Amino acid sequence: MQHAASSALLVAGWHRMSYSFSDGSYMSQQLEKRIRKVHEIVGNANTTGRFIVFGSGSILLLNAAVYALSLDNSSSPAGVVASIPYYPAYKEQTNFFRSLDYRFIGDTSMWENTSDVKTNVIEFVTSPNNPDAQLKKAVLQGPFVKTIYDHAYYWPHFTAIPAPADEDLMIFTLSKLTGHAGSRFGWALIKNETVYQRMLQYTRENSFGVSRDTQLRALKLLEVVLEGEGKEIFDFGYKTMKDRWEKLSKILSVSKRFSIQQIAPRYCTYFQQVRGPSPAYAWFKCEREENKDCYAVLSAAGITGRDGNLFGAGSGYVRLSLIRTQDDFDLMLQKMETLVSGKMASKR
Amino acid sequence: MQHAASSALLVAGWHRMSYSFSDGSYMSQQLEKRIRKVHEIVGNANTTGRFIVFGSGSILLLNAAVYALSLDNSSSPAGVVASIPYYPAYKEQTNFFRSLDYRFIGDTSMWENTSDVKTNVIEFVTSPNNPDAQLKKAVLQGPFVKTIYDHAYYWPHFTAIPAPADEDLMIFTLSKLTGHAGSRFGWALIKNETVYQRMLQYTRENSFGVSRDTQLRALKLLEVVLEGEGKEIFDFGYKTMKDRWEKLSKILSVSKRFSIQQIAPRYCTYFQQVRGPSPAYAWFKCEREENKDCYAVLSAAGITGRDGNLFGAGSGYVRLSLIRTQDDFDLMLQKMETLVSGKMASKR
Repeated sequence: MQHAASSALLVAGWHRMSYSFSDGSYMSQQLEKRIRKVHEIVGNANTTGRFIVFGSGSILLLNAAVYALSLDNSSSPAGVVASIPYYPAYKEQTNFFRSLDYRFIGDTSMWENTSDVKTNVIEFVTSPNNPDAQLKKAVLQGPFVKTIYDHAYYWPHFTAIPAPADEDLMIFTLSKLTGHAGSRFGWALIKNETVYQRMLQYTRENSFGVSRDTQLRALKLLEVVLEGEGKEIFDFGYKTMKDRWEKLSKILSVSKRFSIQQIAPRYCTYFQQVRGPSPAYAWFKCEREENKDCYAVLSAAGITGRDGNLFGAGSGYVRLSLIRTQDDFDLMLQKMETLVSGKMASKR
Repeated sequence: MQHAASSALLVAGWHRMSYSFSDGSYMSQQLEKRIRKVHEIVGNANTTGRFIVFGSGSILLLNAAVYALSLDNSSSPAGVVASIPYYPAYKEQTNFFRSLDYRFIGDTSMWENTSDVKTNVIEFVTSPNNPDAQLKKAVLQGPFVKTIYDHAYYWPHFTAIPAPADEDLMIFTLSKLTGHAGSRFGWALIKNETVYQRMLQYTRENSFGVSRDTQLRALKLLEVVLEGEGKEIFDFGYKTMKDRWEKLSKILSVSKRFSIQQIAPRYCTYFQQVRGPSPAYAWFKCEREENKDCYAVLSAAGITGRDGNLFGAGSGYVRLSLIRTQDDFDLMLQKMETLVSGKMASKR
């Protein structure tokens, strides 16, 4: 029987696991339907009149979008910008691939008043922002400006949803919806057909699209989300994240050395009420000059985060992830309490 | 219960489906072990002293390798070459990403006698070759030459294995081992640590590595292959492919208008015998001037293939895939018989 199973692999592969689905596409139509349905019940994005492209995580789609938008510029490379503090991958990835057509040119604010910019500028708008959870709008406008909306965290467990996002190019990821980062699945909603075709082509040239095993996993996960109309997962996620935020906030409220960002309560159309913060990250600040290497201060206390320098914000900041197992989070809280109380044992 | 399942997604995601495995890697060590074991029992590649990088299909690793090898050249872009007929993706993909550091510069033979080339040249060597199944060696040599060995088809069901491949940079894919092209899983065996680190970094910047669902699927597939020590899958695959090749050859043997490539019998260390051809593709040639658009001739007969122009070989050739379901293959044979017999009904 084992032997029969072994040769059946080839047959199964040729029959059911070829590059494309029976309609010739690399993307499951069933999965696309579920994605549109999830956005509809959550009310966080308008999918009407949008094409969908799948990617191996939203990270791949970020570069696919930069690629697609940069091709409109015939003379000089497009400049890619993001507002400080920004998700480090925008800079890292944009520079890493060393394209003829685009390069990272820094903080958005440096370009805000240069109305004489005559080359393409591509602005990353992350809303809610990674690391500080603020809801953001595009800063730059004009005929040479294109915008990529990274909505990875625009789900009711991480933020109030004031209205459905309704932009030309929006990127989402399964990683921040169900937590399955390892499955590497993201999607882009795209209004312009040319941009859509270029992004689709990018995913084909890169890896012939997204693994069918991954697409099947995503389909099953979204079906579970849909059966409860999202209520249960978002309730659970919101309560968990809110509870974590409140506990961390309480510990830091007595400190003059350390602080975390303010997030205003807002009306959420999904929960139909005004609700407080429940972000994925705390944007941690060391307030004193002698603690200007904030990452080192936290490391010495046994707390790991990501150095504010990576986010363009300087060493006075550290991003702390609140998305971790409960044990990990509780341990971090304990260490934070010790740090804030000033009762840290000296290392030896 | 359904509701409990829904919120459990987030917990499961945070616990078990994060970006990295518990050792901090994006790659399963279990899977890496199985890959080395498969090469050992098959005897088609020497993995000793090689690092392994996973990719979302070998296609992604092809570009990762070009990227990694091109960085050694500080002044002008590296030139990427392949011998005609070559797999179209080398040219398409290399040009598509519009890198500052590399560009496709055509057929290898154009560079064979230019000993004064002083910029990096990266040669793709595909063995067995796609489309014509020949076992190939690198053509170019010298201090400025780097070689990428694409061994996608170097398995006993597609070719004799004269000896284990023992090159510095070799690329394999699950797609041509078990047939699971849709799973998008490939791997590279790399001798040089700097090249390994760069390719690893490429897969991280591209998509944070390969989907864990895909890695799990690959692990299960290789375990089934290993339980039979490969005997059964390669026996089955070899017999199937050999039978298809012989049937197609027989039909074409009576034709003066059409031919397919010659493949010499060779001793195979895996089967421990001299064995005949069992290639993945027939490299189909229209011999007559009036049939110089060979793709159109086959299309008119209801036979789909890939135009020889894509392989740099001109319109006199078409690549016919022999890797398809049995029904599809049998149907193609019937149509081929009709075409060769000259009894085609005129189209109306």
